[in-house]
Amino acid sequence: MANLKIAFAPQVEPSAVPATAPFAMVNYGCRITHRESAFAMSTLTAVVDDLVAANRILAGLGVLDGFGHVSVRHPDRADCYLLARSLAPELVTRDDIMTFDMASAPQNRDTRTPYLERFIHGEVFAQRPDVISVVHSHAATVVPFAASSVPLKPIYHMSSFLRTGAPVFEIREKFGMTDMLIRNNAQGAALAEKLGDNSAVLMRGHGYCTVGGSIPEAVFRAYYAQLNADLQQRAVALGGTVTYLEDEEARRYDETNRSVIGRPWGLWKAKFAPKD
Amino acid sequence: MANLKIAFAPQVEPSAVPATAPFAMVNYGCRITHRESAFAMSTLTAVVDDLVAANRILAGLGVLDGFGHVSVRHPDRADCYLLARSLAPELVTRDDIMTFDMASAPQNRDTRTPYLERFIHGEVFAQRPDVISVVHSHAATVVPFAASSVPLKPIYHMSSFLRTGAPVFEIREKFGMTDMLIRNNAQGAALAEKLGDNSAVLMRGHGYCTVGGSIPEAVFRAYYAQLNADLQQRAVALGGTVTYLEDEEARRYDETNRSVIGRPWGLWKAKFAPKD
Amino acid sequence: MANLKIAFAPQVEPSAVPATAPFAMVNYGCRITHRESAFAMSTLTAVVDDLVAANRILAGLGVLDGFGHVSVRHPDRADCYLLARSLAPELVTRDDIMTFDMASAPQNRDTRTPYLERFIHGEVFAQRPDVISVVHSHAATVVPFAASSVPLKPIYHMSSFLRTGAPVFEIREKFGMTDMLIRNNAQGAALAEKLGDNSAVLMRGHGYCTVGGSIPEAVFRAYYAQLNADLQQRAVALGGTVTYLEDEEARRYDETNRSVIGRPWGLWKAKFAPKD
Amino acid sequence: MANLKIAFAPQVEPSAVPATAPFAMVNYGCRITHRESAFAMSTLTAVVDDLVAANRILAGLGVLDGFGHVSVRHPDRADCYLLARSLAPELVTRDDIMTFDMASAPQNRDTRTPYLERFIHGEVFAQRPDVISVVHSHAATVVPFAASSVPLKPIYHMSSFLRTGAPVFEIREKFGMTDMLIRNNAQGAALAEKLGDNSAVLMRGHGYCTVGGSIPEAVFRAYYAQLNADLQQRAVALGGTVTYLEDEEARRYDETNRSVIGRPWGLWKAKFAPKD
Repeated sequence: MANLKIAFAPQVEPSAVPATAPFAMVNYGCRITHRESAFAMSTLTAVVDDLVAANRILAGLGVLDGFGHVSVRHPDRADCYLLARSLAPELVTRDDIMTFDMASAPQNRDTRTPYLERFIHGEVFAQRPDVISVVHSHAATVVPFAASSVPLKPIYHMSSFLRTGAPVFEIREKFGMTDMLIRNNAQGAALAEKLGDNSAVLMRGHGYCTVGGSIPEAVFRAYYAQLNADLQQRAVALGGTVTYLEDEEARRYDETNRSVIGRPWGLWKAKFAPKD
Repeated sequence: MANLKIAFAPQVEPSAVPATAPFAMVNYGCRITHRESAFAMSTLTAVVDDLVAANRILAGLGVLDGFGHVSVRHPDRADCYLLARSLAPELVTRDDIMTFDMASAPQNRDTRTPYLERFIHGEVFAQRPDVISVVHSHAATVVPFAASSVPLKPIYHMSSFLRTGAPVFEIREKFGMTDMLIRNNAQGAALAEKLGDNSAVLMRGHGYCTVGGSIPEAVFRAYYAQLNADLQQRAVALGGTVTYLEDEEARRYDETNRSVIGRPWGLWKAKFAPKD
Repeated sequence: MANLKIAFAPQVEPSAVPATAPFAMVNYGCRITHRESAFAMSTLTAVVDDLVAANRILAGLGVLDGFGHVSVRHPDRADCYLLARSLAPELVTRDDIMTFDMASAPQNRDTRTPYLERFIHGEVFAQRPDVISVVHSHAATVVPFAASSVPLKPIYHMSSFLRTGAPVFEIREKFGMTDMLIRNNAQGAALAEKLGDNSAVLMRGHGYCTVGGSIPEAVFRAYYAQLNADLQQRAVALGGTVTYLEDEEARRYDETNRSVIGRPWGLWKAKFAPKD
Repeated sequence: MANLKIAFAPQVEPSAVPATAPFAMVNYGCRITHRESAFAMSTLTAVVDDLVAANRILAGLGVLDGFGHVSVRHPDRADCYLLARSLAPELVTRDDIMTFDMASAPQNRDTRTPYLERFIHGEVFAQRPDVISVVHSHAATVVPFAASSVPLKPIYHMSSFLRTGAPVFEIREKFGMTDMLIRNNAQGAALAEKLGDNSAVLMRGHGYCTVGGSIPEAVFRAYYAQLNADLQQRAVALGGTVTYLEDEEARRYDETNRSVIGRPWGLWKAKFAPKD
């Protein structure tokens, strides 16, 4: 999975990234992140640092509270992923990161308590080889859309990734009465199927997930999904007609976003990532 | 009341807690709290520390402002409870904790000014032997539901404890014109009756109370009751149909919650509890 | 005006304050304020300290931003009042406090730039001898009620002071086209007349004012007026019927509030007042 | 362009500014800014300091997040403007400021990555010689109005600058399918035309821009445009009739505002500008 190493290589100048660069060549585009240099530390180390940063960023932005989690595909083992042990994201450090295989079994004889819902991550990684990172959240503005018949739609370019829709996963369809959690691979697989090729999936009575071709992209989508929910709610409440993004507009911006996503990511790391 | 000591014993590993463990065996499940070790300090000391933490947490989370309070049943004397003297929760320290009997009379010849509404706590503890902790709040999102004909209902798993409903206490029914406060045992008893076997009770023109089988559980419910109110409000405003949790879904999650409540509690203590 | 000195005497124990105490005997009821002791500094010094604290508190609570102001009647000269020079409340220090007479003319040959709208304060103090402190604010939740045909009403006990209503001042009625500001004594007098015997007055296209029998009371009312506006808005948006406080309930709580107002005031001073 | 130097001269006393002073004579009116003295540093240095402050202020107030930008006309070269390199506003320092000509080409052989949307600034400066500063934002409360058929209108004096309206720019009209960004001079010119003589323009599916006769004025308008959007939304949701400012009221306040704008600006600089 050599291209994943490229994904986190920090020394490509933003201006050198072609507008059509695949996600795997996305560079965060911020000088602040230059300590991730491949010369200074291994790719795995850099990825773990970014995963810890993602935990703190999502907590700092209010996307996650005591619950929710963010994962990344293992940079050296495409059949594994990295995820914190069961812990509030705001408290996660390097030492809390565990490795899981695609069946969400802990690797390296790690006996620490994992998140009950790690199967979300394993099954999405298994079904979506293009996905490098997954966020699961209960953010306050999205839960109403997960409970409502009104669909979430992109109201501005920042949420262009919603252009294909954010389908609502109804756990009762296949599993009847549950405690609402994704507790095993069958439930994770059903959720991943509902996600399909989209960038986000809502979960009725629960929350939502976003996926991305990099940690910054999954985090960006988790943040702007919940912001879009608030904006759409406000637009609906105004009582007039609302114009959403056209599919083609959103598709074009989604490409553009790859060249500018380093800007918020650089800011968020500077504000929320642990200072060594 | 020996089982209460177990309730606060911190050294049981979360993974060792059976899914059906009664509240009294709930362990906070967070390594951060290991200074509460029974070996390091007495149970009463640990409970008072948690009560102080609960005051600071509820203020830090915006559930309480200058008003409102949180209590805990006395760990050694089931006929008594602990509650701060009349003081804003954000300022409460160990030295501010007073002991009251079930009639809400101060013990130990304590002459400090108590909260006018301590009778809420005394009567709930008297009528509900399963309750270990009580929170009373005026949180902004809940007061509208206490004044509205629209009932508060669980919109996601985090507020599963609302599954049996949050009845609205109308003080005029038994007491006519009052200053809205629960100022004596008769008013406290009427409120406790309205609470019944539920986990929350709304108070018309005033606020609400949540109860729990531990301090973390009562705090968790106070926090998520006000969050659910905001989410439900948003869902209603979208104008579509809204799907609430089924009773069985909520009942199942309520059990699950006992094994994960240590996660937000650990975070909240780390953020808001006084550093010794 | 000897009774005003009593108003700020800090050493009366809260428990010693009878429920029917007139505002002038209100003691802040918080040990944190004991440095205001009449033995340690003069009444004027204590009042100025409280006025500075009120500026910082209102900014800290988000009731005031760069605009708005708070005044207090002069403790030794009933025909004068104290108000900061033209400066954002969050930046006000002791040295910024100016003295004005009832016509809002600066005293002591003070040539610093005063607030354009100081006439609000002068005219309210002139028409309402019971008023000791006045707050003028543009707080976000209240401006909509000042522009709407929907009246602001008390939804819970904390805003009992709204029981007699918060009339809307329409500056066009007497003054036609203006820049919306209260720029002279005639405009101030018309606003004070609209206030009448109420505790709050809304100003169409502008903001609102609250008055109180002490600095803490005026600040408390400014804070809870804007909180009530948010709560009422939420209750209305739920779409059901809304029950407001009965006049007698509100009247009774208003009296109770005098004995507990020291609790939020103590908290707010501890959080926002300048540390010497 | 000598009058621009006057625009930033800090030593004119606010009281000396006539009510009819043109924008170029506006003094910030706050002693806090006296380190900008023309005696202590050159005009360009002072302008760059204010531009950096504007970046931090807009981020600190939540008007900008990782995206958005603020520019100022060059004080010595009316055919140029100053704007940060592509960077989150909260991170901008003096060294990040670039110079562009009216065609938005970087000057001084500066090869750093510029904002993709710098053409907004170049074209507005070209078409509006009275404009000294431009802000572009995606603030959450305004985007709904940019997507809705409901027009943004001034609900109180602070947003008087909206009196002539905030037209909505529909990029599809001239450019069909785009990525929604203003990526070239033709798109910038169309946006500037839609802005016309107004102080704000909304951008469908994107955000908005405000302009001003000084940095503080453009920042003030960016802040109060998004606050007005929230207030108007709340007023609409109340369901009654809403009274907006009359044109003449707004026109008069707009003039007044020139003499008081130094107050929030002084506060914002004190809170958010970098300490040297």
